[in-house]
Amino acid sequence: MAKKCTISEAVIKRLPRYYRYIKQLERDGVKRVSSSELAKNLGVTASQVRQDFSNFGEFGQQGYGYSVGKLRSEIASILGLDQQHNIIIIGCGNIGKALARYIGFADDGFFVRAMFDVDPTVIQKVPEGVEVLNVNRLAEYINTHPVDIAAICVQKEYAKDVAENLVRLGVKHFWNFAPVDLSGVAEGVICENINMSDSLFVLSYRINEQQ
Amino acid sequence: MAKKCTISEAVIKRLPRYYRYIKQLERDGVKRVSSSELAKNLGVTASQVRQDFSNFGEFGQQGYGYSVGKLRSEIASILGLDQQHNIIIIGCGNIGKALARYIGFADDGFFVRAMFDVDPTVIQKVPEGVEVLNVNRLAEYINTHPVDIAAICVQKEYAKDVAENLVRLGVKHFWNFAPVDLSGVAEGVICENINMSDSLFVLSYRINEQQ
Repeated sequence: MAKKCTISEAVIKRLPRYYRYIKQLERDGVKRVSSSELAKNLGVTASQVRQDFSNFGEFGQQGYGYSVGKLRSEIASILGLDQQHNIIIIGCGNIGKALARYIGFADDGFFVRAMFDVDPTVIQKVPEGVEVLNVNRLAEYINTHPVDIAAICVQKEYAKDVAENLVRLGVKHFWNFAPVDLSGVAEGVICENINMSDSLFVLSYRINEQQ
Repeated sequence: MAKKCTISEAVIKRLPRYYRYIKQLERDGVKRVSSSELAKNLGVTASQVRQDFSNFGEFGQQGYGYSVGKLRSEIASILGLDQQHNIIIIGCGNIGKALARYIGFADDGFFVRAMFDVDPTVIQKVPEGVEVLNVNRLAEYINTHPVDIAAICVQKEYAKDVAENLVRLGVKHFWNFAPVDLSGVAEGVICENINMSDSLFVLSYRINEQQ
């Protein structure tokens, strides 16, 4: 499928939602879906859906809609979900543990391979199959295992040091849970942030606006 | 401060980031900041910053920039952070516990008052001062305590039931960590989602695009 060069941020952010919905349809045995049904579920217009998909080439058919199976596999490929991603987690607090225990990711090719902490003796209830290592073994681990993504689950004040260290070791793709901007740490770093307080502030804004 | 009626989603999402940065400046004792400095930190243009703020009335001064203290308090007020928000957490898994233990929220008026779970005996290491109750006491609690926001940290399959129950009890503001759309549960519901897999998919998209 041909991909245009500049896909807007808004489209990129909608892709995972399309994917989740279409995956559910496929699981439910649905064979085809119209742009208006997709639109209704995502709170956008049908023409927006068609426009979104046209960024990646045409894969619908006038009067037929989209084949659910084809659409799922096309979006999976756009999102890189047809590849395997090896994840390591830095920081074994509640967030780190929540990620490690969240089995839903493996479905889409994301595998948590190891967790690192300054004090691995405190770790309890880590899921079977996920190794917990002292952070001083990080270099050794990265040199001997493929690592595609590092989830940064340490406290705010350590996040930048951790990221810089990872870059030195050759890992440049961060899934960042610390409330600091890590994209500027080095050239070529790709960082996706989950900022919980930002989301809480947006909620507060909407509540305030409603009142 | 006068507020225009329609503020774009993009501006709303930038507000927490402005707020975080300006709060840090204030903490560092900085008295004034220019739109270009704000722009640099947020990865937007200076004219975008001025345009963003103009949505809420003018609060800069040509050649002087913005007073950090005034800007912080204005944005706090826009975000509703000058009010107190009482939060309850439904679900005491790792995510629920991570939220309860995250003390940073209190700074901005968000207080976790109680946590609920189907099995409160399993709860360990819950922060001091946060009550953990059986979910069957939810109605009793809500009837006798102010609740502004419910953080929904239960498993996907229970999230909708939990939300519907909360709406019946009069709580309509959700901070939702389950990968389901809850905004359609009832009229007037305000729901802000933290969807971890969506964020991971976006990261995967960007990695895929870079390769």
